[in-house]
Amino acid sequence: MSTATNLSADHPVPLESVPRWDFESDVVVVAFGAAVACSALEAARAGARVTLFEVTSGHGGTSALSGGEIYLGGGTPIQRAAGFTDSAEALYRYLAMAGGPNTDLERARAYADGSLAHYDWLVAQGVEYKNSYIAERCIEPSTDDCLIWSGSEEAWPFVEQAEPAPRGHCPKFAGMGGGRYVMDVLAKRVVEAGVRVQFDARALALIADAAGRVHGVVVRIDGEPRYARATAGVILCAGGFVMNRDMVRRHAAWLLRSQFPIGTVDDGSGIRLGLSVGAAAINMNEGFTTVPWYPPGSLVKGIFVNAQGQRFINEDCYHGRVSHYILRQTGDRVWLLADRATYAVGEMHELARMEIGAAGETWDEVESELKLAKGSLTATVALYNRYAAEGSDPLFHKAPKWLKPLDEPPFVALDCRVDYCFYSSFTLGGLDTLPTGQVVDEDRRPIAGLYAAGRTACGLPRWGEGYSSGMSLADATFFGRRAGLHAASRGAR
Amino acid sequence: MSTATNLSADHPVPLESVPRWDFESDVVVVAFGAAVACSALEAARAGARVTLFEVTSGHGGTSALSGGEIYLGGGTPIQRAAGFTDSAEALYRYLAMAGGPNTDLERARAYADGSLAHYDWLVAQGVEYKNSYIAERCIEPSTDDCLIWSGSEEAWPFVEQAEPAPRGHCPKFAGMGGGRYVMDVLAKRVVEAGVRVQFDARALALIADAAGRVHGVVVRIDGEPRYARATAGVILCAGGFVMNRDMVRRHAAWLLRSQFPIGTVDDGSGIRLGLSVGAAAINMNEGFTTVPWYPPGSLVKGIFVNAQGQRFINEDCYHGRVSHYILRQTGDRVWLLADRATYAVGEMHELARMEIGAAGETWDEVESELKLAKGSLTATVALYNRYAAEGSDPLFHKAPKWLKPLDEPPFVALDCRVDYCFYSSFTLGGLDTLPTGQVVDEDRRPIAGLYAAGRTACGLPRWGEGYSSGMSLADATFFGRRAGLHAASRGAR
Repeated sequence: MSTATNLSADHPVPLESVPRWDFESDVVVVAFGAAVACSALEAARAGARVTLFEVTSGHGGTSALSGGEIYLGGGTPIQRAAGFTDSAEALYRYLAMAGGPNTDLERARAYADGSLAHYDWLVAQGVEYKNSYIAERCIEPSTDDCLIWSGSEEAWPFVEQAEPAPRGHCPKFAGMGGGRYVMDVLAKRVVEAGVRVQFDARALALIADAAGRVHGVVVRIDGEPRYARATAGVILCAGGFVMNRDMVRRHAAWLLRSQFPIGTVDDGSGIRLGLSVGAAAINMNEGFTTVPWYPPGSLVKGIFVNAQGQRFINEDCYHGRVSHYILRQTGDRVWLLADRATYAVGEMHELARMEIGAAGETWDEVESELKLAKGSLTATVALYNRYAAEGSDPLFHKAPKWLKPLDEPPFVALDCRVDYCFYSSFTLGGLDTLPTGQVVDEDRRPIAGLYAAGRTACGLPRWGEGYSSGMSLADATFFGRRAGLHAASRGAR
Repeated sequence: MSTATNLSADHPVPLESVPRWDFESDVVVVAFGAAVACSALEAARAGARVTLFEVTSGHGGTSALSGGEIYLGGGTPIQRAAGFTDSAEALYRYLAMAGGPNTDLERARAYADGSLAHYDWLVAQGVEYKNSYIAERCIEPSTDDCLIWSGSEEAWPFVEQAEPAPRGHCPKFAGMGGGRYVMDVLAKRVVEAGVRVQFDARALALIADAAGRVHGVVVRIDGEPRYARATAGVILCAGGFVMNRDMVRRHAAWLLRSQFPIGTVDDGSGIRLGLSVGAAAINMNEGFTTVPWYPPGSLVKGIFVNAQGQRFINEDCYHGRVSHYILRQTGDRVWLLADRATYAVGEMHELARMEIGAAGETWDEVESELKLAKGSLTATVALYNRYAAEGSDPLFHKAPKWLKPLDEPPFVALDCRVDYCFYSSFTLGGLDTLPTGQVVDEDRRPIAGLYAAGRTACGLPRWGEGYSSGMSLADATFFGRRAGLHAASRGAR
């Protein structure tokens, strides 16, 4: 018989070897972050008996570490009040681009079409939003304000294909860390909906029959294996794998350069449970990484240069996109150049650990202090300044409002070293799913009885260069709900 | 009962549902490229009963499409005769770098230490090598000559960490396509060794027991499922997945930009068979891509520029490494600049489809013909020329022998557009294995009875930027042999 120690997420337990059912329900959900909360809520409200297994002793998961910001659009009341006429089509186009070379158009369409109703649903759960807008660039408001620009909407090349609008919706919560507030609200609803919540329960292995159908999960409680039946489906929402450094090394080794993983459990077990029954995992090399190099927004008027003294990005795009480009530069050194008019110290700078690498009265001085090839950085700045004075950036298409010649001494170069600065990261690869949340195999055939959402799945945010703040929670909550509804509909007896 | 149509590579057939054994052997090998030939040979010679299933009607696989070049070093007779004192340590260091961020040091060490003996083994099988060396840069000799520089050994950053030596060993075969010759030799040995060869047999699914041990494979012959038992092990060497464009889209979408996949069957079925029993697949996003932009070697004295008119690589590194950098440039356009002294047309140019994008008597003319921002390309060339005249390249560290100011008109820009030129590609991700060839799960625990080699496995060549010609065949033949030996040792009854 199985013991808690010889079970592995990588191998399912055959249905016929299950000795008894310790838990019986229609839907089993694994973990207790935002995706689980939303899937459990929808399943329970659709009439399914739902049991939730969370490995820690409380709700929240990695969702609770976030700012609670959700990427919503299509014309929410808050967007409209701030004067923006966003549309589902513009949102769709942006999401389609943000998904990168392996984008999921069907998922982007579903989200774009359903985003407004999802906003209403979140409000109906009790998540409060203040009717306010912050025009200034920020990472996450330190106030209880709501709407922010949280991506690359106004930046090239996105702006050429999708009408821009601010879409980051932050909850009415003063201070950083609104994710905890959002999770507290959702968790309260989960309990009210009658979901059976079992803390301190680690999902060890799936239970599957010979045909590959998933029938439940083995969980460890008090050191013993317990057998949980799910007549309709198991929904895996156990996060990504950024905290499993061996998995990161094997699947997304470049992310190891970022020394600050954002995660709680995120040990890859959700993904591995899926793989054990023939699921496909995709985009496993993809991840998010960023250093919070703005605010202040004036730094966006600066320029990034690499070890060759060359520019490489339009600096007005999302901080995470810039950071991805930083990581791929040859020579491992990158600086942000500013002049007296653009340099300023923001509230995030201590966290970011971006220090002054060089300063001088001329760019020539800065170049030589940075030990760059003579004539390299100065040529870059000269070319940039010449076009900036005319209001254009023919090389990287930074928008005119961020263009200003860097010609007011003193000049500084902020050091953006990846091995020292605060580059945070999480993984974006995971189980391949349909927009219903159904997990699929390499031929995209659904695996009966298995669902995934949140970072256990490869969702809307699946390309580091296209990530925008709030996309992961948007995906987790929206497609978590869909997974719960779909599983519950299968459980109608 | 199973039929040939309801079986899937993604789901193993339970051992208990096998109706009969149509084939019984110690070792089953899947496909018939170089990895299979070498594994089957070693297994059979170690006393194992070996059955080989190949989906097509003949031997060769994708190995036969190659130049037959094998990356060998440590001081082969041909290296020594040409005056090179290569060492196992230098080879190891190069392989370790070439593996990229998720390099496999254990595998690199095994290959470096065993490379000389592997050369002798290949010769003993009847693969002939002419004792000759080509100093001139080439992709693959059109003569029957042997030793060539086939990687980035002399180029930065490799040259800083590993003593360079030429290591591409091409067989004594006049003309392109020596891979067919190598395969013919190896296939003859396979038949002589008493391996049972079954052509027109597609591997449909693995056969596994409830504990996850692999016991054989179901193959389709004449439209019917046949059950093949392997008491010692199944060795999967069914190539990569470059011909399965859906799989490429999901796992390595960037490779779709290369329109010329190199493959035969390479449908990913080998990898999927492994995944179906809990194997881990790694580096699935990695691939090789290249445009044969040299010879002539004089073009190496040219410089590549992107749509911003910037350089981005030391042009003296391997053509595949340059091509990888081309694909990641912003703006999707790249040109190779040359002057009258460096421009020449080589034998590969018609194949490569690199046409002249602009020409002029001054770089200013070329810049404007290419519609680049005024002052961008000209600044790049001016900086390059200034340092080249002094014999240095402080930006990208091209070696002095390739440095020459591009100052002799007329000047040309060769167009290296990815969507038009001949960028070939194949995949480098696959099943994770130990150096014994044993397939492992996410915890790197071997899956009993399962082996993989060649591009079904993630081997020595696992990072496009570090690939060198001959690495894939080196890996397939060397670790194919090891898999055969290890499996046979398990079958000793």
